[in-house]
Amino acid sequence: MADTFTYEIKERIAVLSQSSKGWTKEFNLVSWNEKDPKYDIREWSPDGNKMGKGITLTDEEAAVLKKALMAREDL
Amino acid sequence: MADTFTYEIKERIAVLSQSSKGWTKEFNLVSWNEKDPKYDIREWSPDGNKMGKGITLTDEEAAVLKKALMAREDL
Repeated sequence: MADTFTYEIKERIAVLSQSSKGWTKEFNLVSWNEKDPKYDIREWSPDGNKMGKGITLTDEEAAVLKKALMAREDL
Repeated sequence: MADTFTYEIKERIAVLSQSSKGWTKEFNLVSWNEKDPKYDIREWSPDGNKMGKGITLTDEEAAVLKKALMAREDL
């Protein structure tokens, strides 16, 4: 039986890009299975009903990522 | 036939976290199928031979993500 889960996008923080087919790669706060929301980077279909592979980040992981990105002068 | 692909971690930028089983969630520059390296956030097994779901980011996407993270005062 396919895994069933619930999700709710609590905050749409940023759209990182949009593909020619309208899918958007987004940075959001998402609550999975009604748990506390986590930072989340993944692609979403134009109607928002389908999602692609992505990654969730705890606050600590997001803080480390922020520091690492800030150190990248080429960005 | 399973998708075959090659990858090479060109730069290990940051370890975002490590699980109790030794898997590390990392921010790296990875070259997929010998193409130009892209930013990449995903989990890697302790011996580095297995990888989990993750996300690749172009320079532009990483720059937008950096800006969004910098605006988060709670991080």
